[in-house]
Amino acid sequence: MHPTTLALIRAAIEEDVGSGDVTSQYFIPELTRSKAKIMAKEAGVLSGIEIALEVFRQLDKGLGIWARKADGDAFEIGDVILEVEGRTRSILTAERTALNFLQRLSGIATTTRRYVEAVKPHPVKLLDTRKTTPGWRLLEKAAVKDGGGTNHRIGLYDQVMVKDNHHMACGQLDALQSAIDRVRKDRPGIKVQLEAASLEQVADFLALRGVDMILLDNMSVAELRQAVQINEGRVFLEASGGITLDTIKDVAATGVDAISVGALTHSSKAVDLSLEVL
Amino acid sequence: MHPTTLALIRAAIEEDVGSGDVTSQYFIPELTRSKAKIMAKEAGVLSGIEIALEVFRQLDKGLGIWARKADGDAFEIGDVILEVEGRTRSILTAERTALNFLQRLSGIATTTRRYVEAVKPHPVKLLDTRKTTPGWRLLEKAAVKDGGGTNHRIGLYDQVMVKDNHHMACGQLDALQSAIDRVRKDRPGIKVQLEAASLEQVADFLALRGVDMILLDNMSVAELRQAVQINEGRVFLEASGGITLDTIKDVAATGVDAISVGALTHSSKAVDLSLEVL
Amino acid sequence: MHPTTLALIRAAIEEDVGSGDVTSQYFIPELTRSKAKIMAKEAGVLSGIEIALEVFRQLDKGLGIWARKADGDAFEIGDVILEVEGRTRSILTAERTALNFLQRLSGIATTTRRYVEAVKPHPVKLLDTRKTTPGWRLLEKAAVKDGGGTNHRIGLYDQVMVKDNHHMACGQLDALQSAIDRVRKDRPGIKVQLEAASLEQVADFLALRGVDMILLDNMSVAELRQAVQINEGRVFLEASGGITLDTIKDVAATGVDAISVGALTHSSKAVDLSLEVL
Amino acid sequence: MHPTTLALIRAAIEEDVGSGDVTSQYFIPELTRSKAKIMAKEAGVLSGIEIALEVFRQLDKGLGIWARKADGDAFEIGDVILEVEGRTRSILTAERTALNFLQRLSGIATTTRRYVEAVKPHPVKLLDTRKTTPGWRLLEKAAVKDGGGTNHRIGLYDQVMVKDNHHMACGQLDALQSAIDRVRKDRPGIKVQLEAASLEQVADFLALRGVDMILLDNMSVAELRQAVQINEGRVFLEASGGITLDTIKDVAATGVDAISVGALTHSSKAVDLSLEVL
Amino acid sequence: MHPTTLALIRAAIEEDVGSGDVTSQYFIPELTRSKAKIMAKEAGVLSGIEIALEVFRQLDKGLGIWARKADGDAFEIGDVILEVEGRTRSILTAERTALNFLQRLSGIATTTRRYVEAVKPHPVKLLDTRKTTPGWRLLEKAAVKDGGGTNHRIGLYDQVMVKDNHHMACGQLDALQSAIDRVRKDRPGIKVQLEAASLEQVADFLALRGVDMILLDNMSVAELRQAVQINEGRVFLEASGGITLDTIKDVAATGVDAISVGALTHSSKAVDLSLEVL
Amino acid sequence: MHPTTLALIRAAIEEDVGSGDVTSQYFIPELTRSKAKIMAKEAGVLSGIEIALEVFRQLDKGLGIWARKADGDAFEIGDVILEVEGRTRSILTAERTALNFLQRLSGIATTTRRYVEAVKPHPVKLLDTRKTTPGWRLLEKAAVKDGGGTNHRIGLYDQVMVKDNHHMACGQLDALQSAIDRVRKDRPGIKVQLEAASLEQVADFLALRGVDMILLDNMSVAELRQAVQINEGRVFLEASGGITLDTIKDVAATGVDAISVGALTHSSKAVDLSLEVL
Repeated sequence: MHPTTLALIRAAIEEDVGSGDVTSQYFIPELTRSKAKIMAKEAGVLSGIEIALEVFRQLDKGLGIWARKADGDAFEIGDVILEVEGRTRSILTAERTALNFLQRLSGIATTTRRYVEAVKPHPVKLLDTRKTTPGWRLLEKAAVKDGGGTNHRIGLYDQVMVKDNHHMACGQLDALQSAIDRVRKDRPGIKVQLEAASLEQVADFLALRGVDMILLDNMSVAELRQAVQINEGRVFLEASGGITLDTIKDVAATGVDAISVGALTHSSKAVDLSLEVL
Repeated sequence: MHPTTLALIRAAIEEDVGSGDVTSQYFIPELTRSKAKIMAKEAGVLSGIEIALEVFRQLDKGLGIWARKADGDAFEIGDVILEVEGRTRSILTAERTALNFLQRLSGIATTTRRYVEAVKPHPVKLLDTRKTTPGWRLLEKAAVKDGGGTNHRIGLYDQVMVKDNHHMACGQLDALQSAIDRVRKDRPGIKVQLEAASLEQVADFLALRGVDMILLDNMSVAELRQAVQINEGRVFLEASGGITLDTIKDVAATGVDAISVGALTHSSKAVDLSLEVL
Repeated sequence: MHPTTLALIRAAIEEDVGSGDVTSQYFIPELTRSKAKIMAKEAGVLSGIEIALEVFRQLDKGLGIWARKADGDAFEIGDVILEVEGRTRSILTAERTALNFLQRLSGIATTTRRYVEAVKPHPVKLLDTRKTTPGWRLLEKAAVKDGGGTNHRIGLYDQVMVKDNHHMACGQLDALQSAIDRVRKDRPGIKVQLEAASLEQVADFLALRGVDMILLDNMSVAELRQAVQINEGRVFLEASGGITLDTIKDVAATGVDAISVGALTHSSKAVDLSLEVL
Repeated sequence: MHPTTLALIRAAIEEDVGSGDVTSQYFIPELTRSKAKIMAKEAGVLSGIEIALEVFRQLDKGLGIWARKADGDAFEIGDVILEVEGRTRSILTAERTALNFLQRLSGIATTTRRYVEAVKPHPVKLLDTRKTTPGWRLLEKAAVKDGGGTNHRIGLYDQVMVKDNHHMACGQLDALQSAIDRVRKDRPGIKVQLEAASLEQVADFLALRGVDMILLDNMSVAELRQAVQINEGRVFLEASGGITLDTIKDVAATGVDAISVGALTHSSKAVDLSLEVL
Repeated sequence: MHPTTLALIRAAIEEDVGSGDVTSQYFIPELTRSKAKIMAKEAGVLSGIEIALEVFRQLDKGLGIWARKADGDAFEIGDVILEVEGRTRSILTAERTALNFLQRLSGIATTTRRYVEAVKPHPVKLLDTRKTTPGWRLLEKAAVKDGGGTNHRIGLYDQVMVKDNHHMACGQLDALQSAIDRVRKDRPGIKVQLEAASLEQVADFLALRGVDMILLDNMSVAELRQAVQINEGRVFLEASGGITLDTIKDVAATGVDAISVGALTHSSKAVDLSLEVL
Repeated sequence: MHPTTLALIRAAIEEDVGSGDVTSQYFIPELTRSKAKIMAKEAGVLSGIEIALEVFRQLDKGLGIWARKADGDAFEIGDVILEVEGRTRSILTAERTALNFLQRLSGIATTTRRYVEAVKPHPVKLLDTRKTTPGWRLLEKAAVKDGGGTNHRIGLYDQVMVKDNHHMACGQLDALQSAIDRVRKDRPGIKVQLEAASLEQVADFLALRGVDMILLDNMSVAELRQAVQINEGRVFLEASGGITLDTIKDVAATGVDAISVGALTHSSKAVDLSLEVL
């Protein structure tokens, strides 16, 4: 498990348990043991099962813990996700932290799956964005994959994305071309994507050397269709901007290669799960 | 600023910037300077402004940064939240991390404000829960307060809450009473709350010594009203369980002291904000 | 074990071992194995046994380690506290760090037990304070419990305690009342305690709404007795200020609910323990 | 300031403040400003003033803070140690953490000064030991110096000290000699000290090559005097074991070079200091 | 400055200073102030100047520090790199840590510059590898750029590189093709590079869809020339494997796009610099 | 294993793996298992084997890992250093980080061994310096020992070394004497070494009380020989300054006690090792 994920789990336990779980300490006899299971209270797609296992493990190495579903699995109401057995105090102290991870990540996977279903049968990829919860980037990107989505760049470091704010500071097309040339010289392994706000810009960008992808920002379905035509399959086209479950099918039908949806990570509802002691 | 919040901000910058912002490095001249502002693209209630300021500060101590709204302020579309001036590269590298904090926290404050408005004019408190994003407990609890809500216990350490899973492991009423007595002896500064699933349990719990609060879990409006009657103002009554914006007014009218809503922190949508370079 | 405790143990080993235990490296053959035991060189009450086990464990996972006493157990001169078997180098490198934890925490438990014995048979609680060694709050509070004492608030976050410095800044009684009201509204799970320096203040505070506890600061035995009378059992009364083993019995006899003693944590002597290789 | 000291200060603030100082938040208006001073409630010797300044600084960079005494200064009842001015909330939130550092470290400096006075006019050094509070080694060693004492080795890494447990595992005198030779070859900058439990051992050790210091463990005053005679000034002699303020003068008169006292760091009482808002 | 770089600087100071600089404490009066400069004792190319400034800053915020050269600047014997003024103790305590960073990073920049000069006038890029000092990846990659080199992928996360060990585990060409297809679908922003050990493999790989770059591993100059011919400019060709200053010119003449040299980061000699107090 | 070493290993894995090893994820089936071995591609002396084992262990606790050589062992081309068996993905993700540690540390041990052979049969010690890679001090000092060298002081804390910059700030010989006296009084376990730049200084320093070692800086072979004569075996003499494999034999013949060589740690070439999947 990635060191930053382990650090987040430790921080999560520390913020919840603090100076000690006063309820378990006084209301659960020290030696009492139980079996418990995490169950689904609504249907969804699982993500974060390894994190949940690790929460229980960090709290008490003596617990027996079994995953009953894998990340990416769909589940129905009443399905058992995870079983745990051992000291009751440990189980109840870990409960909320484990659920908080699972509910949020499964919420993202579940929402993603809905969007993925919505674009079928178009061969278009559903992309996430960098609009993630700070500290959770890797986990939320993994949840999008569990839901069937595709990961866009992870951060500012693994792909160039020139947005309107950069254009403004960078200057004219020839300045843009020479910046692209420098990237390809200095960092040949890095892909270059440009954000276009109009069809004129799309045409301009297609004339540049070294562009791998174009982001079509806030365009209408008609404009997107034209962009696809102009492109003639040369670069990878991504549609973006306010696309919802209602509108995504029409966008998918335009022939763009991918559609990115920030809401996957910044506005997914949690999936309702609960832990029950048997 | 709390050390764990500073650590979260550092982690957030690290996960986004990684080995460097390749776009700014190549597309923004090193010495270019700009003014920029964070603006609201929809109405809401602000939370997290100090975090946003700190993100810019950590990235470049040479930036001038000014908050134009305070936490708890309502804002309309087009309102300016924050202004920043200095090296363009620094501003654009910080942009997404600052927005990710602001959008999420303001989303929680905004949702909370809606619930708070919904229960007016009943003198009932709107409580949050421990269903928060791991690593974000303090920030999300602060956002609920910015929205006008009330903070329930922060974690497992600052209040006793005996839920059904504890009852099961603890045993009969007399075992419960002796556990409550031990808490009051060992930790006199800690309040004791019991979760009741039926009116019978409410009656039982009211007969115990040393109970400060009762949680009325998943009760109908009729049951809640009866619980308020039985209680005769003796202990603090909290209603909980699947309460939404549609149903909260009726719950508030039953006379309970407080209503807790997990969705405030686990399922709020982000508020749409954007940074614009002038 | 709490993450901050693990971090403290790691820091303790690091500060002692630094770039390596030069004595063991040169004077103990690498493969030599030994049995050793930690023994009491004076009588006392044990605290910190789990920490000591963890010190040995972190230094060498191959050691066999057995606790022979539990936290809270009384021990006599010559009693064996812990046994360890394995690589001699590891045992000797861990020795001082393990002992430093055990000696200090058992010192606190032992002093606490003495105070607890001194107040018998009065039904009064012996409380600790926030006058703890920075970085050791949770461990020292646990040691007080091992000695039979009662934990006051853990930190500034889990209870309100309005001291004279706050009164001065807060203002008159009506300002105090409205602040108490705000706490109860915003943080219903938090108890409120006021510090009183005179019987007049006690009377004033008893007239306020929402006060759970009063701290009687530096009062004479006669004043304490009067405070108990005035109170008529309404709020929890805590006596505090310069109370020693010599004076505590008289204070206990006044009928206060609890007595807090800062010296438990800030001025306890270490208990003398030693590790002997067999 | 050393990074581990900064980390300890951060941890200390975090453990006390946790999710927030509920008292200051509700009872001190946000904009109220005060002057306050830390005063001595008993006489002593100061240590830790830089730590106390840093505690206030970390909590609020806007505070004005002035040290009125320096580490190593003696102070009387009523003397002002430190003054601070700024937001009242910040001052009161920092109060206990700053005092906890100052009280403990000044307690060690004060006890040390008493021992140093007691051995006058003998030209003997007063040494500390490794019996320090885990996590506090550097601070407590500095406090001993502030009190006029002398620092023994800092940890296991900066000096060889062969104790009886090592002798037992190392073997006969010739094994000891060859181990000493190896140290001098491998680590020429490291001093070698042997612990002797009898005069016979002292004589044996004086016959070895490469011994810099001998520790005379638990010897009577008569034995110590003989050891000084046998030594004829060849190596550095340190007396150790159960030496108290009552017995130290006689030990000092034997002519040993140094006396080590574990109680300086493991059993010093805190000095009574308090913060007063003006 | 990147958080991991700050952490490395803190760790570097901590490992050198440990429990305190005993030489400066005793041999430099506390209030003595000096000017000092870091000078070149041999010619080279500078890298790491920001790190050196930060080392002095972390040790003493009161120092005045001025960079006299910028990263990427060439310097001659006797040139001044950096000047510093303030407390002499602080300057001497920081000296070795600052020099250790500068000497190593400038050593890498200097070696890189030599290779860059050697391939002129061929339009070939000089690439670094992942053979860096653990913990130093970002700093060493920046030093390569300061020397005029080009950064290959930063880590395992920002580019696909299929080596012979992967081929073996992955299987036949059609398995390879389907893996490449999955990458392009799941991670469209990531470039794909394949390592070829023979011209047959080069031909095979050129027939695959979605290959951006080919690594020509340990090929002779003749083979490299053929590979360039076969490629007809379709994909980016990188030569690699045991290329030295003696052989690099011939390799550059083959027409490959880039040459990677692990020795830049794993075997560069330090540049000789020294700090002189005026 | 020392906590700072574990932290360095974690940081090393994090910087290489980042958001995930995209190659292994797509080109190695999840359940494929392999055997692999790390082999020598040139002869050398091993150092860092425990670090390499730990890298594999941290990445996947399910791997079987066997060291086939121990630190300090010489190896020839083709020798197997380490074998590992388990999930292929884990092995390939760990490969480069494990090799980067091993290659660098073995490079230092190998270079050291060459110097050690060069001074035979003179009974002179080969010393390292503080010119180490920041963050790697302990590992590099251990590598020097594995190569047969001797460790000089670890950092600024465990020995006094008065260099010319200190002399300048400290003043005349009597100031030097009184500083030495203070060290011996305050820190009796710490050795004192003075750096001499001329034979006059050597003579001056030999007249001082309390000097354990003299560093003969940048002296000719003739001067070194004279210094040995003047010294008459009184203090430990260390030669230093630009000594190479070519000149070290002559220096060793002068009769100095030790020779220090900064290049051992700051300019050793990496040893060529590779991992091969079977």
